[in-house]
Amino acid sequence: MMVLVTYDVNTQSAFGRKRLRKVAKECLNYGIRVQNSVFECNVDNYIYKKLKNELLDIIDEDEDSLRFYIIGDKYKNSIEHYGVENGVDVEGALIL
Amino acid sequence: MMVLVTYDVNTQSAFGRKRLRKVAKECLNYGIRVQNSVFECNVDNYIYKKLKNELLDIIDEDEDSLRFYIIGDKYKNSIEHYGVENGVDVEGALIL
Repeated sequence: MMVLVTYDVNTQSAFGRKRLRKVAKECLNYGIRVQNSVFECNVDNYIYKKLKNELLDIIDEDEDSLRFYIIGDKYKNSIEHYGVENGVDVEGALIL
Repeated sequence: MMVLVTYDVNTQSAFGRKRLRKVAKECLNYGIRVQNSVFECNVDNYIYKKLKNELLDIIDEDEDSLRFYIIGDKYKNSIEHYGVENGVDVEGALIL
């Protein structure tokens, strides 16, 4: 299933900037970066929980914001993209 | 239906920073800001097209990235939030 991960990490401190790098690095292990703070992850339930737990271990819930959108399996016609591409579509169909 | 709008605007120039402000302002007319560059818009097809056209008029497709995720009507259990809240949930059920 497609899970969209979006985040805002407070980068006012060096700790925050480190968290931001770690969140992005972790997301890259599971999906493609489509925008700076937006990742599309094609995962099953088990991997989704693993990813979520790993990200929750990294972020500071008093400082940062983390959201997951479960888009499901039928997402090909649910995503529209305009402008420059940050990511590479692993399945060749997401970028309109 | 719920439509998620995410964007990256290139703010290296003053023109870019102006575009960023205009995109955010336009999105605020249609939905709630849940993260800096992520808006949730509860719209019908007509309003969705209107929003899309207005945003496409603002962004520079050679510089910026704009994505729409059509989450549909049954989204209550499809969204998980952790950490600080940027937005206010107009329907009282999105923030977990």
